[in-house]
Amino acid sequence: MSLKLYVDRISQPSRALVIFCKVNGIEFEEVKIDLTKKQHHSPEYAEINPMKQVPAIVHDDLKLFESHTILGYLASAFPVADHWYPSDIRKRAKVQLVLDWHHSNLRRGSVSYIFNTLIALAVGAPINLSAAAKGEKLMLASFTTIESFWLEEDKPFLHGSAQPSIADLSLVCEIMQLEFAEESERERLLGPHKRILKWIEDTKTATAPYFDEVHAVIAPIREKLQGLKAQLGK
Amino acid sequence: MSLKLYVDRISQPSRALVIFCKVNGIEFEEVKIDLTKKQHHSPEYAEINPMKQVPAIVHDDLKLFESHTILGYLASAFPVADHWYPSDIRKRAKVQLVLDWHHSNLRRGSVSYIFNTLIALAVGAPINLSAAAKGEKLMLASFTTIESFWLEEDKPFLHGSAQPSIADLSLVCEIMQLEFAEESERERLLGPHKRILKWIEDTKTATAPYFDEVHAVIAPIREKLQGLKAQLGK
Repeated sequence: MSLKLYVDRISQPSRALVIFCKVNGIEFEEVKIDLTKKQHHSPEYAEINPMKQVPAIVHDDLKLFESHTILGYLASAFPVADHWYPSDIRKRAKVQLVLDWHHSNLRRGSVSYIFNTLIALAVGAPINLSAAAKGEKLMLASFTTIESFWLEEDKPFLHGSAQPSIADLSLVCEIMQLEFAEESERERLLGPHKRILKWIEDTKTATAPYFDEVHAVIAPIREKLQGLKAQLGK
Repeated sequence: MSLKLYVDRISQPSRALVIFCKVNGIEFEEVKIDLTKKQHHSPEYAEINPMKQVPAIVHDDLKLFESHTILGYLASAFPVADHWYPSDIRKRAKVQLVLDWHHSNLRRGSVSYIFNTLIALAVGAPINLSAAAKGEKLMLASFTTIESFWLEEDKPFLHGSAQPSIADLSLVCEIMQLEFAEESERERLLGPHKRILKWIEDTKTATAPYFDEVHAVIAPIREKLQGLKAQLGK
């Protein structure tokens, strides 16, 4: 059975998926859907994912999108260590809880903040300052929730686990979008959240060397975005 | 083991959960968290669900929230017919796909539309017409997606299934929020979507008599809301 991942590494759920497959030794073909070239809007890609978003997969004759669905599916379809998506139904429910919460909280806040402070500049879209502020507020509230309820002192991963789940990977890759911002901005937003900073480091270590390898896409784009921002006087 | 559901039937995921338990003969105690009395903001309820939302459950010593997580958990923890949450990983992934999609599409659109056309009036919040319009647009686009990709002609449920899954129940209960609106408005929004109207009827039939029983909460509130709307000249 062949597995194709349709991804662009500038997308955070795409990165989570690529890292997951690499760490778990799942063989796949990576098909780049270049978002900057709008390849996700091509008629060919609509045959893979009618929602025109990345990531998507084709596994034999099964087409899937929605990164959480894909991660849960791959963790079940391949011989993956149990901690990624526990077979114990209570442990699995706790992983699923964070994934479900993510959609309308961290993801929603982070996407709105990053789009309206950086990506809009790059794609020539209007910047909505009010949406950026709302996004930042939701993102910061989400950081507080994660630190208050799901990360425990001296325990590396969500729910006090010793090893990461697909929820750790999905959420940490989301937070890594802040690497597109300039350093002072990242420090302002993430600096006060020591537990989250430690969690990012622990996730990097647990998925080395793939985490850094897959995130290498960010630095050159950050330089370009910051150059563009300076040029536009934003 | 005891199961407590913390719900308010005016909330669509609360209704999905109550219907699911009743249809599947799962014994539970229903604890009403009255949203109109802000009981979800009480310190006692924060012990159950720190996110201060309904629904939540306590099953023995396990506390859960996020309705999709709860539905998946209950379908695994109790002897529930397989079609609700298939054990086959490919079929399950297709159910999960719709659930994940729901968060940022139908749910997001519908909640924004209903809040900014009706609920805001009832709770004395400012009405944001632009948010109502954006919500309506996303909700209608979601109807089109459901009809184009997931409901098949002459097949009652999502992905052409003969019996409902937790995704059918969750999404149909979401659409039932439109019952809070006046009839002409429901007709304007849902009338053109014949396949969705049929799907609602098929879900009602598959979960009778509980679907109507649990939705009985809506009609008297609709009368009040419409009265208030007339009074305020909105």
